[in-house]
Formats: sequence, C-alpha cells, structure tokens
Amino acid sequence: MCSHCSCGQPSRTLQLRHNLLERNDSNAELNRERFAAAGLLVLNVLSGPGAGKTALLERLARQWIHGPVGVIVGDLATDNDARRLRAAGARAIQIQTGDLCHLEASLVNRAFDQLDTGGMELLLIENVGNLVCPTAFDLGERQRLALLSVTEGEDKPLKYPALFQSADVVVINKVDLAEAVGFDRSQALANIAGVAPQARIFELSARTGAGMEPLLHWLSHQRQGAPV
Amino acid sequence: MCSHCSCGQPSRTLQLRHNLLERNDSNAELNRERFAAAGLLVLNVLSGPGAGKTALLERLARQWIHGPVGVIVGDLATDNDARRLRAAGARAIQIQTGDLCHLEASLVNRAFDQLDTGGMELLLIENVGNLVCPTAFDLGERQRLALLSVTEGEDKPLKYPALFQSADVVVINKVDLAEAVGFDRSQALANIAGVAPQARIFELSARTGAGMEPLLHWLSHQRQGAPV
Repeated sequence: MCSHCSCGQPSRTLQLRHNLLERNDSNAELNRERFAAAGLLVLNVLSGPGAGKTALLERLARQWIHGPVGVIVGDLATDNDARRLRAAGARAIQIQTGDLCHLEASLVNRAFDQLDTGGMELLLIENVGNLVCPTAFDLGERQRLALLSVTEGEDKPLKYPALFQSADVVVINKVDLAEAVGFDRSQALANIAGVAPQARIFELSARTGAGMEPLLHWLSHQRQGAPV
Repeated sequence: MCSHCSCGQPSRTLQLRHNLLERNDSNAELNRERFAAAGLLVLNVLSGPGAGKTALLERLARQWIHGPVGVIVGDLATDNDARRLRAAGARAIQIQTGDLCHLEASLVNRAFDQLDTGGMELLLIENVGNLVCPTAFDLGERQRLALLSVTEGEDKPLKYPALFQSADVVVINKVDLAEAVGFDRSQALANIAGVAPQARIFELSARTGAGMEPLLHWLSHQRQGAPV
C-alpha cells in the first residue's frame, strides 16, 4: 500500500503535491550538480515490475568497459536487486522505500553519499517498478530510460503515456520472447513513436545479450569524457 | 504522473489519506450491498502492467457457462481493454482514471450504474496495472485476485508484499513461457506461501487456455447461486 497516494480534498492535496514536487525539483538540481562534478553520466531507469530493469543493469555492469558501473536501486522491500547487481560487478546501493512507490531526489542524494565513485563514469538509478508514480520525480539524471518488455503488450505506451513522454530512451526488452508471445513489433514501434517521438529506441534481450551493442555504443558516446 | 501521490508534510498527508480511505471504505460497503442484492460474485483483479489481466478476463468471458460476464475495467488512458473484452463476449464498462493509479469504490459505483446485470452472476473488476497503489482500496469485492506472470520473476511477492498479503487468490499466468524465461516454480510458490499463506494458487496460461479449468471450477462454486 502506498501511504502517499491521497486523492480526496483535491485543492489541499494538489497544494501539498505542488510543494513536494518543488522541493524534489530543487533536490534534483543539487544532485545534478553533484553528478556533473563527479564526471558521471546518470540515467534514471523506469518500467513496470518485471520488465527486466535489473537484468539490463546486470548486463551493462558486465559489458561496460569504461570503469566500474554504479547503481542506486529502489524497491519497496528486499535488497535482492543490489545483491544481484553486486554479483554482476556493479557498485550497488539499495534504497528500501517501504510504501513509497517511487524514488525521490533526496533519497538518491543520501544513497549517493555511500557510493564510491572512484574511476566511475556511469551511474544507473533503478527506480521502483511502477509505470505511474515515478514519472513526475526528477532525480537529477541526465537521461531517462523507459523499459518495455514484449511480454507486456504493444499498447503500454498508450496506456501510460506520461512516462513514455518523459523518456529520452525507450528500450524494448525480451525480444527473444517476441515470437512466443505474438508481439506485434511494428504496432509497438508506432505506439512509441506516437506518444514519445523524441525517444531513441533500442531493441534487445537483457537475458541473452542480443542487441546490447548499440545501447552500449550510444552510452559510451554520452559520457562526459567521450571524445566529441 | 499520479497527481494523488503526496509524500511531503507527513502528518497532514496521512490525515488526508486517512479521510480518503475511510470514505472509500464506506463507499465499498455500499458497493458490497449492491453486488449482493444483484446476486453477483465480484472479484477485484490486480497485477502489474502486462501480467495478463485482460487476457485472463477474456478467457473467463469466453469459457464461463453461468450467463454473461460483467467487467468494469480501469486504465489511466484508452478504452482498449473494454473493446477487447466486449469482443470476447463480456459486458464491459471502461473507467479512464486519468492520472489516478488505482480504482476507488466511488468510480466502480458509477460504472456499475451503466452495467446491465440481467442474467449475470459474475462481475470482474480489472484494476489499473500497478502493484502498489490499488492495494489499500477496497472496491466492495468478495474476493481479491492477484495475478503474477512467470516473466516478471519469482520475487515479486517479496518485493510487493502488501498486495499479495491482501489477496484471496493468486494466479500465476503465462506458464507456457516458464521454460523460456527460466522460471523457478518452487521458489515462486515458496515466496507466495511465505507472504500470502491464505491465498489459493492457480497456475495457468490465459493465452493458450492451459490450466483454466480449476479456476473456472472454483469460481463456479463461489457463486451465490451455487449448490452448497
């Protein structure tokens, strides 16, 4: 249960939310300055539960060649994901959000204090698995990556437009299962293009590793230290 | 974005939320009375996005033999699901929640006004795809069904315990993909049993139809008109 969803008494609720988002935005700016000072490319990774965020981040941690990969990972409960990510070689800090259905900039700030960024150029923030709540919360990232799995169906961008509209990158994951689930690729691409024409699209399988190269290549070019 | 998530100023936010949940609970009681008067078995169906709620409800609508199946379906945007469900023979009413990440009893009440319940014994409420927000909102249902897909991973009950703790029934869907995704069935069953020992578990594939019979049989016995 999310003790932070308040839908009654709209004017008071909206005012509280407005204050909350303003405070989050200034904390996000502080994060952005800290990340820039540390020379980090930072991505905020969002998806529904089970779309494969952790599997993608494990892959990136294993295949990234420009130093260690940092991960700040949020879940309501458990530290399963941080343990998985450390086993893949990432420097991972787990945030347990309790009943909060998204990360906030202040939580990321505190987790960042615990991260050893020596030699690091890439920091990935794995948000809570949710296609609604995390959308409005800037964490200070440079890029926002929305992950969609072929098993979720082609119409998720239409059903959760705000998240996809806010994404710089959309990754279609689990393409190895596309045939088994009857995934309609051109419909999915058309839905993404309709809702999020700004987004760069990558298609891959984090489980098999197919299609990882173009994403790794693009990330390499986004680093602060990358040659222009 | 969910304009109803307010995380700042905890005491005021919690008070607002308390009022909201109290009001929702009394609306849910009204719904429960209306559903009982209409002789309906009502299920609230919850899962993350893309776990297969609509596919399961399409199957139930096609295979249910005790009259027409009613569906009240919530999504942030689109009426795709109601159209799919009508094509499967259900009497479906779509609720578009906008930026609200869950259904509330009052929304279900208004949708129920539009539903022709003549000859109907089974009403399914398909909640917004979200493993957090819908948990605290009673809709007046008799049973709560949580859906989990093998493609989401075995640890979702541990990561989203509140939802599974509130479930009367847990359905493991997409079992036809279990081998392809390396699903660890006994780990998943142990995780469900640990978090939600009260829940009855069904394993099926809504896409292929495998495993539907035990669920249909159980639902038949839950009807108000069922022989004791």
